Amino acid sequence: MASVRIREAEEGDCGHILRLIRELAEYEKLSEQVQISEEGPRVVGYGLYYFIYSTWKGRNVYLEDIYVTPECRGQGIGSKIIKKVAQVALDQGCSQFRLAVLDWNQRAMALYKALGAQDLTETEGWHAFRFEGEAMRKLAGK
Amino acid sequence: MASVRIREAEEGDCGHILRLIRELAEYEKLSEQVQISEEGPRVVGYGLYYFIYSTWKGRNVYLEDIYVTPECRGQGIGSKIIKKVAQVALDQGCSQFRLAVLDWNQRAMALYKALGAQDLTETEGWHAFRFEGEAMRKLAGK
Repeated sequence: MASVRIREAEEGDCGHILRLIRELAEYEKLSEQVQISEEGPRVVGYGLYYFIYSTWKGRNVYLEDIYVTPECRGQGIGSKIIKKVAQVALDQGCSQFRLAVLDWNQRAMALYKALGAQDLTETEGWHAFRFEGEAMRKLAGK
Repeated sequence: MASVRIREAEEGDCGHILRLIRELAEYEKLSEQVQISEEGPRVVGYGLYYFIYSTWKGRNVYLEDIYVTPECRGQGIGSKIIKKVAQVALDQGCSQFRLAVLDWNQRAMALYKALGAQDLTETEGWHAFRFEGEAMRKLAGK
């Protein structure tokens, strides 16, 4: 593969990003959970982040998605996306950024750890919980 | 204990909320991570939530903190806070809400499960990762 450019997304990227979101869901074996409905230079990966709030740390970054298409893996593109997110976080005054990884995705886990991330589920015991559907409506009395 | 009222926070609650945030950090055995710097009718618990984005589901709610002061536990106050958050989420068009729990906090885990939550770390294998401090600065080349 030739050179790889890490850049901010533009409006025209929407079709590419949607394609990659679908690929990511398939890779995560969770395609059935996707609820979205649509394709220049080749876009081969993306990182999708937003700002969140931490009670203890204040403004924070959450990396919702990071994905590189299969034929382009192993070339350091994922690391470049992570580096870009670290730069954005620091530029915006955030002292950290977070993401979630599936435990069978050992390749991703190894990469994040090699880049200096801490597995908080392993070290502090954090579990992710979700309320949804019928249980949530019942709770809300609706 | 007499009757408990679950209500939206007001500006005058800041001192109480800060006190409870500190109590929560102590309970979570993570006090050293708090980076904040203060005390009417008695405020005995709080839920702190915000809206997040989910690539697959769109707008979503994240319950950052839920806390009830020790002497008021076991009276259903935590459940009432959870129910309030479920109502807010549905009223705002969100199909779910999420939170994180420490694995040794079996009481909280049991409550959330009894209320219909799914432990995504257990069922899907999600691990929480964090980049921070020196590792993050190094990544960003700063």
